[in-house]
Amino acid sequence: MTHPTRTQVVIVGAGPAGLFLAHLLHRQGIESVILDTRSREDIEQTIRAGVLEQWTADLMRDLGLGGRMDREAHFHSGISLQHGRERCHLDLEELTGGKRVTVYPQHEVLRDLIAGHLDHGGRILFGVQDVDLSRVTADRPQVSFRQSADAAPETLVGDFVAGCDGSQGHSRQHIEGRTEYHKLYPFGWLGILVEAPRSYHELVYARHERGFALLSTRSDTVQRMYIQCGVGEDLAAYPDERIWQELRERLATDSWQLREGRIFQKGVVGLRSFVSDRMQRGPLFIAGDAAHIVPPTGAKGLNLAVADAVYLFRGLEQHYAGQGRARLDAYTDTCLRRVWRAERFSWYMTTLLHVNPEENAFEQRIHMADLEYVTSSRAAATALAENYVGLPLDG
Amino acid sequence: MTHPTRTQVVIVGAGPAGLFLAHLLHRQGIESVILDTRSREDIEQTIRAGVLEQWTADLMRDLGLGGRMDREAHFHSGISLQHGRERCHLDLEELTGGKRVTVYPQHEVLRDLIAGHLDHGGRILFGVQDVDLSRVTADRPQVSFRQSADAAPETLVGDFVAGCDGSQGHSRQHIEGRTEYHKLYPFGWLGILVEAPRSYHELVYARHERGFALLSTRSDTVQRMYIQCGVGEDLAAYPDERIWQELRERLATDSWQLREGRIFQKGVVGLRSFVSDRMQRGPLFIAGDAAHIVPPTGAKGLNLAVADAVYLFRGLEQHYAGQGRARLDAYTDTCLRRVWRAERFSWYMTTLLHVNPEENAFEQRIHMADLEYVTSSRAAATALAENYVGLPLDG
Repeated sequence: MTHPTRTQVVIVGAGPAGLFLAHLLHRQGIESVILDTRSREDIEQTIRAGVLEQWTADLMRDLGLGGRMDREAHFHSGISLQHGRERCHLDLEELTGGKRVTVYPQHEVLRDLIAGHLDHGGRILFGVQDVDLSRVTADRPQVSFRQSADAAPETLVGDFVAGCDGSQGHSRQHIEGRTEYHKLYPFGWLGILVEAPRSYHELVYARHERGFALLSTRSDTVQRMYIQCGVGEDLAAYPDERIWQELRERLATDSWQLREGRIFQKGVVGLRSFVSDRMQRGPLFIAGDAAHIVPPTGAKGLNLAVADAVYLFRGLEQHYAGQGRARLDAYTDTCLRRVWRAERFSWYMTTLLHVNPEENAFEQRIHMADLEYVTSSRAAATALAENYVGLPLDG
Repeated sequence: MTHPTRTQVVIVGAGPAGLFLAHLLHRQGIESVILDTRSREDIEQTIRAGVLEQWTADLMRDLGLGGRMDREAHFHSGISLQHGRERCHLDLEELTGGKRVTVYPQHEVLRDLIAGHLDHGGRILFGVQDVDLSRVTADRPQVSFRQSADAAPETLVGDFVAGCDGSQGHSRQHIEGRTEYHKLYPFGWLGILVEAPRSYHELVYARHERGFALLSTRSDTVQRMYIQCGVGEDLAAYPDERIWQELRERLATDSWQLREGRIFQKGVVGLRSFVSDRMQRGPLFIAGDAAHIVPPTGAKGLNLAVADAVYLFRGLEQHYAGQGRARLDAYTDTCLRRVWRAERFSWYMTTLLHVNPEENAFEQRIHMADLEYVTSSRAAATALAENYVGLPLDG
């Protein structure tokens, strides 16, 4: 056992929550060390969708990380909601007084955050093993780990530990007395990456009697598309031609053509919602997917993780400024207000747009009526839009 | 068999749809006869709640029927939504640019409509029997009936027949090829009428962990209150004190007292939604509860019946003006746009405010988050308000 290393905040996990937190702390002169069991390459190459809310993109810029995003990302001032063959434009920018979303994949965000943090001299230990939070106690929070399988165990001692290790991470297990709220949706998403030009100038969310479809984009030459499928569907049941057939049908309008191309990645994901009603215990705080999961329909997961990081940062900033623990003590409550709003919105978008085999014909019709209402009432469209571009951060 | 009586429109049912239709037709010089199997006393004394949308109250006035309503009704410019001990005012009038709702029980509306129609020389045959729509065919629509059990059968011949005979009526059975959409909610309402002064200046819709409660009013001395109960609950299980205990708990705030009094009526109703996707066949048109049912949570049933009557009137008016059948042909589609919006709103209010034993803890939390959102977002509050006071009539 080597001599313990001292830092102020030990951050477990180099995902959006951990990296944004490290950047915010660094700017305020608060030191942190990030541990992640994955390699830098793994983190940077795991392709994940990403729709940044207006304030998230603004925060990237504010942290000096907006350069590549502003060159390469797509800025969407609207989305389309489609029902049957009717595609309806929702003008997010007009409805929200000027807010847009930034389509910039999560792994690109992470690349910028990692490079920026290392440039600042920030410490990120990739590929560590045996991360152990069992000694994160009130008096002397310690996190032990190994730099590699055959390395000696090391110990990091901090004032606080931020558990940003995702839904499969261990940090949540150290939050005692929590209640977990879960929902599994009885359908999944089959996603593809395609070499093709863009088919449409904005994201299209379609509800069709055959199920949900989403037309998204990665770049001018790579497109992202999804179709609703069964839970745990076997990819073998979806040869390329079947996928194109479903996309063509579900996204069809009278005056528009889907641009097809070579499918170079396919995958199936389940949809679930999850919230832990406690996000802190003593010096340990959990953030992002470690504490809550949303289905991808509302594109809220990444943004919610960043919001947690901001709230945790504000608490730590107050503490290190010698102004007490009020914000840290309120961390869970502050986060959960936003978390439940995002959970509600993600659940709403999911139920609105998917064909749920557990619902009866009346309930299916209700969702169709809701789509019709949302696209015809300014108030309802505004409510959807203000959530989609991101509700303002509290405080 | 007596000689057939001739009229222009045979209206089956002296409820809101039938009576409003008769008034609108009469004003345009179009003749009708209303048949109802109930006695006038039955119709006028069956106590039903009533919340009139702004346009419905305006239509009463427009038809010269607003006098008593304007003296006796309560005009509410807001409602309260309560969650736990938090009661939140929704300013309907401010949110909707000046619209209010009129709390005026349905049977009072019917009394005014019946008296007014008879004053105009309108014909309403109460207490008829054996109403038979089987000869409502395209060429010569005939409705047969008896004025009493031992009277001879009579026949009414009209150009059109309006089936306004409620959810239990027969007219819907003559709309061939229809699909019916149903939902039964796994809870009911236990309603009471109480001799007591008003406890609050506006309606209170409460979601409590023990279930929904609604504080409503009939007059300065009679109050209407409801609590969520099981389906087909036995009234014997609810002695007065248990009801008061539930109302006290579910409606409790830190600074408010429920005013109790003698309970002089108790009843249990189930909650259900229903839509027929066809509302016409040849010369037969159905309207109101004959075609669709909403749970009472959104207070939409009466208003929806009146909207159908207005749409049917507009079609008949066009026809009798020699301007063709376009509006009559579009009757179902025109009605259903509004019907599904009202069904959606009623379903939304019902799921928002009731504790559904079939939902898991996550879904319960989602509804709590929705209540929190609706009471904190102007856009969401406006969407609720515009539905509550009544969306504008099409056309």
